[in-house]
This record gives sequence, structure tokens and C-alpha cells, in this order.
Amino acid sequence: MSKNLTKRSEDYSKWYNELVVKADLAEMSGVRGCMVIKPYGYAIWEKMQAELDRMFKETGHENAYFPLFIPKSYFSKEASHVDGFAKECAVVTHYRLKNAEDGSGIVVDEDAKLEEELIVRPTSETIIWDTYRKWVQSYRDLPILVNQWANVVRWEMRTRLFLRTAEFLWQEGHTAHATKQEALAEAKQMQGVYADFAENFMAMPVIKGTKTESERFAGALETYTIEALMQDGKALQAGTSHFLGQNFAKAFDVKFTSKEGKLEYVWATSWGVSTRLMGALVMTHSDDKGLVLPPNLAPIQVVIVPIYKGEEQLETISIKAKQIMAELKSKGISVKFDDRDTYKPGWKFAQYELKGVPLRIAMGPRDMENGTVELARRDTLTKETVNQDVLVATIEDLLGKIQESLFNKAKDYRNSHITEVDNFDDFKTVLNGKGGFISAHWDGTSETENKIKDLTKATIRCIPNEYIEEEGVCVFSGKPSTKRVLFAKAY
Amino acid sequence: MSKNLTKRSEDYSKWYNELVVKADLAEMSGVRGCMVIKPYGYAIWEKMQAELDRMFKETGHENAYFPLFIPKSYFSKEASHVDGFAKECAVVTHYRLKNAEDGSGIVVDEDAKLEEELIVRPTSETIIWDTYRKWVQSYRDLPILVNQWANVVRWEMRTRLFLRTAEFLWQEGHTAHATKQEALAEAKQMQGVYADFAENFMAMPVIKGTKTESERFAGALETYTIEALMQDGKALQAGTSHFLGQNFAKAFDVKFTSKEGKLEYVWATSWGVSTRLMGALVMTHSDDKGLVLPPNLAPIQVVIVPIYKGEEQLETISIKAKQIMAELKSKGISVKFDDRDTYKPGWKFAQYELKGVPLRIAMGPRDMENGTVELARRDTLTKETVNQDVLVATIEDLLGKIQESLFNKAKDYRNSHITEVDNFDDFKTVLNGKGGFISAHWDGTSETENKIKDLTKATIRCIPNEYIEEEGVCVFSGKPSTKRVLFAKAY
Repeated sequence: MSKNLTKRSEDYSKWYNELVVKADLAEMSGVRGCMVIKPYGYAIWEKMQAELDRMFKETGHENAYFPLFIPKSYFSKEASHVDGFAKECAVVTHYRLKNAEDGSGIVVDEDAKLEEELIVRPTSETIIWDTYRKWVQSYRDLPILVNQWANVVRWEMRTRLFLRTAEFLWQEGHTAHATKQEALAEAKQMQGVYADFAENFMAMPVIKGTKTESERFAGALETYTIEALMQDGKALQAGTSHFLGQNFAKAFDVKFTSKEGKLEYVWATSWGVSTRLMGALVMTHSDDKGLVLPPNLAPIQVVIVPIYKGEEQLETISIKAKQIMAELKSKGISVKFDDRDTYKPGWKFAQYELKGVPLRIAMGPRDMENGTVELARRDTLTKETVNQDVLVATIEDLLGKIQESLFNKAKDYRNSHITEVDNFDDFKTVLNGKGGFISAHWDGTSETENKIKDLTKATIRCIPNEYIEEEGVCVFSGKPSTKRVLFAKAY
Repeated sequence: MSKNLTKRSEDYSKWYNELVVKADLAEMSGVRGCMVIKPYGYAIWEKMQAELDRMFKETGHENAYFPLFIPKSYFSKEASHVDGFAKECAVVTHYRLKNAEDGSGIVVDEDAKLEEELIVRPTSETIIWDTYRKWVQSYRDLPILVNQWANVVRWEMRTRLFLRTAEFLWQEGHTAHATKQEALAEAKQMQGVYADFAENFMAMPVIKGTKTESERFAGALETYTIEALMQDGKALQAGTSHFLGQNFAKAFDVKFTSKEGKLEYVWATSWGVSTRLMGALVMTHSDDKGLVLPPNLAPIQVVIVPIYKGEEQLETISIKAKQIMAELKSKGISVKFDDRDTYKPGWKFAQYELKGVPLRIAMGPRDMENGTVELARRDTLTKETVNQDVLVATIEDLLGKIQESLFNKAKDYRNSHITEVDNFDDFKTVLNGKGGFISAHWDGTSETENKIKDLTKATIRCIPNEYIEEEGVCVFSGKPSTKRVLFAKAY
């Protein structure tokens, strides 16, 4: 229970790992680096999926499904792409098992070797662009605005629940366009969709920006990112949208006849968010008592716990509780009535705190006499007595306020953790002190970027969209610079 | 276009393959046996998923997610299970690629061999029961009512779009119970859910029954099935629900302390339907002009095609069309207005026939004068002139009627293709003549079942729930029998 949860101030990383498991979000499986997403965690992911899917469809996208396996040869076709992913691929080499001759169990049947090895997709650009070649002949076939919800595998050596797992769930949009301008606009649009989702559903403020060359997606000409800040002062890349130029069209020979009758290569984007967002959600809002969930993504928004002695009291409370539930449900508010007699109220209170349920109603015999309930807010851990006849209106109002308040709190924290520095000593002091984003001038070279990374572990998270030109000198090399960028240690 | 579609009477199998591709449902990918589900096909699958998911949740189930990979050793733990699946597994043996030393491309890095090979899940009982061991201690932890939507891989040698592919999408429910009775009731309940879905959404009549021992799921004590009949007289197993007894609990040591304080093994079920249902949907209703979709699963229920010359006519029609669209949408009816000027009306008509859109509205200048539209039904290929002011009500009514009519038509066909036979000559005559289900006595032995299969390719599809005891003799062996069973050739 929550008593046993490590405090954030003691060991933030341990707090996170414990919380994800104790709150029934996920756990490691018997398969190295692969997690089990438990029903409560999956219910949050489903809410994320539903909102994102709605947003994708509202912006004209359709879903489709492409194969899990990618022939090895496809991978070699786009040179920078294969460089980026080859070292973390899972490879299928055989397709059959048989009984071991010595009776020791089952073994791989060496006779059933595949002619060409298959890669378990780490991302699907190659198999999708191999397909798009068949779909595109004329400008009439464009744009293709397709998204896929899928599992992908990247054989990571160090894994952490949700943040970095060998298999994870995500969506990957893959679009094809007739012009560069259209593809660029699409990539930027999806960055905007992600920012909207992060801020209005996850209550997680993000900075929209562009990645530097060395932090770009393998195969992209430009990567647009949304960057969030966790409570320990480390940044987290929450979603990326890539302008791929004509790289994949050229690698897979995808051409179209333009309105003017010319044969041209197609322009591409891809964009994705993953179950990593679950980790971001936990680390943005939760506290030493457990999860704190924004109402817009909470699987249970309100829980009702009866306080009673004996069947008769329970029955009186149940009648009222069911009436309240019906009213809440009619307003689209999800509510659970926990009348289990196998657990005591105090245990249930701690349990729902741990699980981050935004509002808790407790109802006892005295409440029934007075026509009241006790209403507790998870985010502020405050309680108030509320008249039953204004309860539903109060809850409706409060859920909106909690959502807003969580966003504002996270935004205040984030804003107070963006520090402008103008020399490398200050850079290191801030980075190892309060942490957060460091806004500093940079000379624009990968060389400087890499040196800073080697010395401090800080990377350039992005060149923020909103930053304007400003004369300065690079915080490391002293060379001239025209724009600040954001550095941070990152997940 | 539809002109080129092979007729069912000429070559049913070819008709199916062509239709799935031409109607933009799916196509084979560059990966052996793996399909691409195209946006239009995926939109139908999404509607199926949404309804099934709602039904699962209404019966108390939650979703979760378990790893794609299963360690080989898990597979050996349940003996009959490994026998059933070992020969069709894809096996991951390595986890890294590297550049070939001769510069010929990328190759598998032989140094990066996995200590234990991983199986790409063909079904998830083993990894899930390995997880349930950690979730279950006491009767308080039961039941576990969990479902997963996932991709699975079975390395089939002969593949067909939707019906049999190396990778397919499905849902797999895996439940854990304290008693045998409860597990049995769950398995039967899910058979009922599947039948409800098949009949009320797919408009596909099914027979509920029990599988014989040799047709059971590998590891099950009992398999409940729903069996449908396709237009070529072949049966299709559309969904199965398994009572697994304590087999997996014993293999993975999953025990619980009962209310009485005794340590007992947990009882299990599993149940699934897959993208195979897409194939069943196509083969149940479609005709020589293309798809026929039941309104309850059609991504587009109504399409409006304007007939016009010049911008002015189009504008007048568009205003009316948009008004109709708004009204239809407010009733929850999905509608598309196809005002593309790159295609002619005749082409569009054929296209929407091919894609099975249940209702088509055509509106030209004369319709605008008369306040009418032409309304065409896809299932009957009939047209009528309808006044614009009763159009929405007419459509609402018609969509319900089409749904019902498709079901009744399929049911009439199915019922006229269940033939009682009492000797083996008649058995063969019917099987190779009109086909369909053959209701015959069987002596209850696998030996007879296998001999009939070898001689005729017919298998026992099920022992129907509704069949009653009846004295008779086995159609093959002449031995006494107390119940008829249903034989058929099957997909």
C-alpha cells in the first residue's frame, strides 16, 4: 500500500518504478524488457487512444494495418534509416519448432530456416513505403493520410516500465503528398495535434520545437517534437513528427504523375506517440501517496465508499449511492461504487489515493441523516462536506477545475525550470542543481552539441518554435549564435 | 472496376480473392503470407472491434496487454498445447543486425544470439498464465476477466486474405475462476456473445455447438464454437470459446486459497475471434457486383452522388446535399458526399456498388426541380424516387430493413443447406452436390471422424447445442449413436 511507497525526494526513480507496479499500471514480464500492461494501466491508455484517434480522424486520417515483419532487405534501402535502427532489431530466422531428439523439450527446427530473415518492426516506414508504391500512380491518389495503431520492438538493453521497453504500443502516422509544402504542413499540423492532446488531456505543458540534426529521426530531414518536463527536472520527449522529404519515396521508388503530366517522387511524413506517454503522465502529476490522474484521462473519475455497520446501514447508503451514480453517469462522468465487505474504508481510501481517482465520496449514517457526503479531492488531498442535492453539480464543476489546476501547477513548475544561462559554468551549475531546461546560445554544430553531451549528459531537446532571433555567443565554444536552444538531461 | 470481377458461379474462390483486393479491403504484402489491411477494410474491422469491445465490457471484462514474445520454455509446459502450435511458430533467435563485411548490405549479427529463443505468440495462454500466477493468491483475486486486442502469428503454408494469414489481428479473452461451474458458464456466455454479434451486426446466422475432441483447441477440455455457412456451401468457424479446466493453472502453478482456506488450482477459459470474420462477412452477403455490407457494420451507410453540368448546378445540389447530410448525421447515420469532379457519376455508382455502400442517393437538376432524389439499395439493386422531405425517415427505416433482410436471406440459404442423411452414399452425394451442413449420426469415435475426413474432406463442425437425443446408427460405421452432429467441408 501507499505507506510503502518510496518518497520522490528520497529516490525519484525508485518512487516511479514502485508506483507503476503498486498502482496496477504495468509490471515486467518473464520476457526480457517486455512489460505487461495491467487492466488499470490499459484503461488509461485506451482513453488516450480514443482521444488521439478522434483527433486524427478529425484531421482527415484513416487507420490501416501493415505487417509486423519487415524483410531484412527493405531495411537496407534507406541508408540513414538502417543505421539508426539496425542495432536494436529483433530478428526472426526460423519458422518451426520440433521436439528435441534427446527428449529435453522443444527446440528450433534448423531445417525450417527462412530464406530471408525478417525484422520485427521497430517502426514501419520501409514496409509502408513498399506498399505505397502500389497505391500511388497519379496526383489523384494523393494525399494518403494513414495511421496505424500497433506494437513495435526495439531491443533496448536498459529498460524501464513505459519509458523504455523492448516492445511498446504506439501509433504511427505515415502520409504521402504531392508537394513539399503540403508534407511540411502535415508534419507541423501533427506536432500541433500532439501538443493539444498533451496539454488538454494529459494536463502536461509541452514546448513545441525542432530537433537538431543529430537528434533527428533516422531518415528524416526535419523532426518536430513536443518536450515535457518531469518533476525531477528531467525532460521527456513526448511525441515527434517527421518531415521525411523524398527519402523513402526514392528508396522505394514511389512516383506519381502530376497534374502537369510530370513524373515526380512523393513527399512523406511520419509521426508517433507511444505508451511512453503513460510514464510522462505518471511523472508529471503524481505524488508520494500515489498516482494523480487528470479527470480527462481517469478511468474512474469518482469513487463512492460507504461507511457502515451492518446490512441495514449499507442498504440505506446503497440506495442513495446508486441514485448519485445514475445522475453522474447521465452527465458522462465515470463512477464506481465500492461496497466490497472484504476491505475496510480506510484501506479503500488509501487504495483510491494510490490509484489517483480524482474525487472520492464517503457516505456514512451521519451523512444520511444530514443529507450530506464527504467529498475528497485527490490532487490537493482536501475534503469538504457537500449537500447531496448539489453534489452532482459540484462534482461536474470540480472535475473541470482539477483538470485546469493540474495543468497550471505543472506549467508553473515547468516555467520556473527554464533558466537562461550565458556561460558554461552556470550551465553546469543549473544542470546539476535545480535541473530543468537550460536556454542557451549554441553555435549550431554537432561537434559542440556532442561535446556538451559527453561532458554533462545534457542534450539539445529542441529549438523552440517560439524563440526569436537574438544575437549571442555559444555557451560552450564562444562562437557567434543567433538563437537560443533548450538543453536538458532527458529520459 | 466491377465489370472485371469474376462471377461467383464461375470460380467462387477467385471471386473472393478479387473482391477483397478490388474493394480495397486488403492485399498481400511483400512479406510471405502477411496482409496489409487497407483503410476501407480496416474501417469495417474497427466497427467490429467497437461492438465486440462494448459487449465484452458489458459482461464485466477489462482489456490488458501481454508481450508479443513467449520464451520457448513456456511453450513446453502444457503438453497438448505445444503439440498444437509448435509447427506454425515464428522464432526470434537474434537481436541485432550489422553491416556485412563484404559490403553487400546488412546481415544478422551472429554474436547477438538470444540465450533463449522467443516465439512470436500464436496465442497467449502460456505468457498470460505465467502472469496470472503473480496476480492470484486468494479467492478475493478471482475472477480475472481480461481481454486483449492483439496481433498473432501462425506460420501457415497456404494463406488467403483474411481467412488464413501468417499474421492476423484478433482478440483473446483469458479468464480465471475459483470454480469449474463458473469457468464453464463464462465459456458458454462468450459463445453467446459471439453468436449475438454475428447475427445482429454481421447479419450472419450461426449454429452454436460443441467441438469434438479432435477439433478442440490444443489444451482445452471443451471448445464451444459458432459455425456459419458461406455462399459456396462451405462452413466457416467464426468464433470459439474454450473451457480449459485446470490445465494451464497446473502447468504454470496458479493456485488460490479458497474461502474455506484450502489451496486449489484455478479454472480457466479463453475465447477469440479474428480478422477472419472479415472474410466471413464478405462471403456471406456479397454478390457479382461487389461487396454487400450490413448497415450495422458499413463505414459509409449512405453515399450522395450529384449529377450535374457546370458549377452552378453543382452548387444548388451541394446546398441540398449538405442539408441532408447534416440531418442524417444527427441521426447517427454515416454519410459521404462524393462531389469529386475527377470521376463521372457512372464510375462512382459502380465504385460504391463494389464497396457495398447500403444506400446511394443520386441528385440531378430534375430532382432539384421536383424536390426528389433517386434512392438505390445495394442489396436488392433496386431504385426508387423519394421525396426530399421524407428522405431521412425513409433512409432510417430502410437501413433497419436491409439489416434484417440480409440476415433473413442468409438464414434461408443456410437453413436450406442443412440436410439430414442416414447413409454414407447420400452423405457423399449431398457433400459433393449442394454442399452445406450434413446432419448425420456418428458413433462418437475419432477413428470414424478421421476416416470420413480422409475420404471426403468433411469434418464435424460441431455437435449443435439445440440437437436433442435421438436413436440412430453412425452414417459411416453403422454403430449405435444417440445424437446427430453437423458435418461440412470448411474454410
